[in-house]
Amino acid sequence: MERKDEIKYWFRGLQSSIIQALEKEDGSGIFSEEHWERPGGGGGITRLLKDGSVIEKGGVNFSAVHGETPEPIKRSFQSDAKDFFATGVSIVIHSRNPFVPIIHMNVRYFELSDGNSWFGGGIDLTPSYVFHEDGVFFHSALKEVCDQFDMSWYPQYKSQADSYFYIRHRNETRGIGGIFYDRLAAKEPENFAKLWEFTKQVGSAFAPIYTTLMARRKDTPFTPEQKFWQLHRRSRYVEFNLVYDAGTKFGLETNGRVESILMSLPPMACWESNYVPTKNSPEFESQKYFDNSTDWI
Amino acid sequence: MERKDEIKYWFRGLQSSIIQALEKEDGSGIFSEEHWERPGGGGGITRLLKDGSVIEKGGVNFSAVHGETPEPIKRSFQSDAKDFFATGVSIVIHSRNPFVPIIHMNVRYFELSDGNSWFGGGIDLTPSYVFHEDGVFFHSALKEVCDQFDMSWYPQYKSQADSYFYIRHRNETRGIGGIFYDRLAAKEPENFAKLWEFTKQVGSAFAPIYTTLMARRKDTPFTPEQKFWQLHRRSRYVEFNLVYDAGTKFGLETNGRVESILMSLPPMACWESNYVPTKNSPEFESQKYFDNSTDWI
Repeated sequence: MERKDEIKYWFRGLQSSIIQALEKEDGSGIFSEEHWERPGGGGGITRLLKDGSVIEKGGVNFSAVHGETPEPIKRSFQSDAKDFFATGVSIVIHSRNPFVPIIHMNVRYFELSDGNSWFGGGIDLTPSYVFHEDGVFFHSALKEVCDQFDMSWYPQYKSQADSYFYIRHRNETRGIGGIFYDRLAAKEPENFAKLWEFTKQVGSAFAPIYTTLMARRKDTPFTPEQKFWQLHRRSRYVEFNLVYDAGTKFGLETNGRVESILMSLPPMACWESNYVPTKNSPEFESQKYFDNSTDWI
Repeated sequence: MERKDEIKYWFRGLQSSIIQALEKEDGSGIFSEEHWERPGGGGGITRLLKDGSVIEKGGVNFSAVHGETPEPIKRSFQSDAKDFFATGVSIVIHSRNPFVPIIHMNVRYFELSDGNSWFGGGIDLTPSYVFHEDGVFFHSALKEVCDQFDMSWYPQYKSQADSYFYIRHRNETRGIGGIFYDRLAAKEPENFAKLWEFTKQVGSAFAPIYTTLMARRKDTPFTPEQKFWQLHRRSRYVEFNLVYDAGTKFGLETNGRVESILMSLPPMACWESNYVPTKNSPEFESQKYFDNSTDWI
């Protein structure tokens, strides 16, 4: 089997197994399923869950597209390769309970007909209320995955997540980071083998990590004021995704599938002008974490 | 009195008179008042209303800033002028009742120390539910202002608003347009006189236009479903402002006052994936207007 087929089928299986794990932990929500085709070649499966018991809105998307290399991709990769192939799984989950964090994952593989290929991806967490022990659990799980391959990867990819998920105009982070890596070259067979195994481990780590956090926080009662804090933090999530997120920008500029690109946006968000949490409140304590200063491990 | 002082004082008065008119029509809401200073020179007055009877969130901002010309402005105007001066009034009103439209106005004057100066601005309307007669009323009022100066202005500036307030990735307009004009050169005295009078007329037209629409729609009862449609349309407003709006982009990139720049964002918005209004519903009929095809007059 060709590399790209192997990866595509594995990603498609990953999508299914993540769906299963999320539906089980949610308890009532069911993901809808939409198959789509890309006019230029390939397609994908969009799976959405609305109004579950724990998940207020979640998307788990798989795609595998190919065809003539679009101009923006040629420019971005400084390549004249005639054809491209791209496959990946993208996830954003918005929880109903403000104590259950938002999570985002992306694993992707990209290949050009000139023989070059790359892996990219990561997982990051955006809690409204930051529980230190959840941050430690989350970052430890990611470090464990990275450390199997290279002891330098966790610190490097954690630092890249910190830089990437930063809302410049607010001087704050989107959440508490995670790992983020991009354009890891996979042309040489030994690189490919290592990066592909790493990608599989990252993808496989998602469900156990997130269902643990769901289970830990989903039954905590919350007040309307705590829900408001979540809606307020979600507004920052919207700002990051629409103003800075490279994938969103690229997707919108290249006439991607709008509903798939913007499935990352929360079901509801609030903008209250000049909102500042009361000193020493739980919201105030959480806000302190949004500055990249925490060394979780 | 220098041109720039004349304009600055008039704009400041405009802010006050608009506040008065809006508070009167709202009936209970009071605008807060915050004076701020710009480190490099000048400052402004931010006035915000939260949770009024009609206005859910509204901002009426005045600013007059000056100093050393920032690099992005030099690039944008292809000028090496040492100093700049900019003054303006910016308004965005989000109403509680889904039948009262969102309105946006901006009038501004910009001057460089090389002797060049420009006016820009406009008013545009974003109803969730489009009432044809309100659109006709709104556009007629703007046409009346323009026609006093030049019969070609209304068609030209209406068309510029149609192009500007367009959400490319959704293939839809933000609302039903209005007028939009930018960089009208005011160096020659006769141009200045005409454009300054025009600016004053646009600014003065705002309060009577919007209070008429408030009065017309504020007492119409509405259902939670109708409120949802408004929250849905507001999500498009957010997308436009964060992805395309030139002023927002410029402000965020040049480290402007974030809360003033983003006061345009709605108090609350909803993103529901794949939402499409039921055929022939009032929402469906309103959606049809978001395609720039309407000739209101």
